[in-house]
Amino acid sequence: MVLKYPNGQIYQAALPAKHKQTKSKTQEPVSFSNRGMRFEEAINESNLYYLTHNQAVVHKKPTPIQIVNVDYPKRSAAVIKEAYFKEASTTDYNGVYRGFYLDFEAKETKNKTSFPFKNFHDHQIRHMEACLAQGGICFVLLWFSSLHRCFFLDSKNLISLWTQQKNGKKSISLTVIEKIGIEITPKIAPRIPYLEAVEKFVLKESNKNGK
Amino acid sequence: MVLKYPNGQIYQAALPAKHKQTKSKTQEPVSFSNRGMRFEEAINESNLYYLTHNQAVVHKKPTPIQIVNVDYPKRSAAVIKEAYFKEASTTDYNGVYRGFYLDFEAKETKNKTSFPFKNFHDHQIRHMEACLAQGGICFVLLWFSSLHRCFFLDSKNLISLWTQQKNGKKSISLTVIEKIGIEITPKIAPRIPYLEAVEKFVLKESNKNGK
Repeated sequence: MVLKYPNGQIYQAALPAKHKQTKSKTQEPVSFSNRGMRFEEAINESNLYYLTHNQAVVHKKPTPIQIVNVDYPKRSAAVIKEAYFKEASTTDYNGVYRGFYLDFEAKETKNKTSFPFKNFHDHQIRHMEACLAQGGICFVLLWFSSLHRCFFLDSKNLISLWTQQKNGKKSISLTVIEKIGIEITPKIAPRIPYLEAVEKFVLKESNKNGK
Repeated sequence: MVLKYPNGQIYQAALPAKHKQTKSKTQEPVSFSNRGMRFEEAINESNLYYLTHNQAVVHKKPTPIQIVNVDYPKRSAAVIKEAYFKEASTTDYNGVYRGFYLDFEAKETKNKTSFPFKNFHDHQIRHMEACLAQGGICFVLLWFSSLHRCFFLDSKNLISLWTQQKNGKKSISLTVIEKIGIEITPKIAPRIPYLEAVEKFVLKESNKNGK
């Protein structure tokens, strides 16, 4: 099946050509360890699934680029000849689901017992704080590639843990994540069914506020 | 005053260097006609104003780029040597305001009596439809550069007008926009106070639904 984006473009996973060629040899239905881009790809495919099934509209933001020099050849497309990667001022993903504003970041580690804080940057934390203040649903999707386990961790908890770095903490232990996060079991489609975790989170929050 | 993004980067308007140089000669407080980028710049500055005043978190999405070739020189930043502009699959702006998901596009025309449909693309219309279905607040900000007038037009009305193209319509008349849109009067800061229009729209919609 050829998946198409709403703009008619054919869906292409954001992998270098080399990875694509070797993909068929190594691909397992719900496994995407060992490759830096595989988790991100799984999220992108899940977003496409949710979009085509009218369940949510979530997109990965394009990588911000500072363009310095562009060539405009006659009768063909403009070619960017010199450009640089810029630091993003927000998280990678946002969108809308049942009236909720969703905003999240997807991160992975090879560690087996904890998730290092170095995966999160100051500006992402500040962006999440600002979104939370506006009533958005903000979270991170954490992928333990060696364990094949995925967790939803809401940003309020993440930020609270993040501040512990002052006390010398370098990471969040898996035990803590198991306790305060919501585990997401990868599936065939969507590969990372993160909306199930969002639903659980929303329910938990509304129960809290109801009391 | 130097404005800074939350990531500490200094705010720089997305203008080519040439425009920046001539800017001081021609700049008026609330005028940004005659230059393709000026309206977009005014929106970006308004977003920064809203962000720093904790009123909303709205960002312009980076331009999507297909990177083909990157150079990694020793001891300096990676240089993109070959890349191409890609068509965006969404609108340019989204974010969160008081729990609402906002999604919009900013467009301008030099016309004095109507806004041409050719400013909107199929994929943008489809994206707006998908966001509306999820309960987002979707709209376009229309700038008549020759008239110095700005309007908020909600996407439901835009889409309904858009379908009239089948009957040979090429544009939306200013008279119609005056009637169904919400006029936004440019100010010093934020330059385009579009949240005021969003508030009016939300109020109108909740009154409708309350009846």
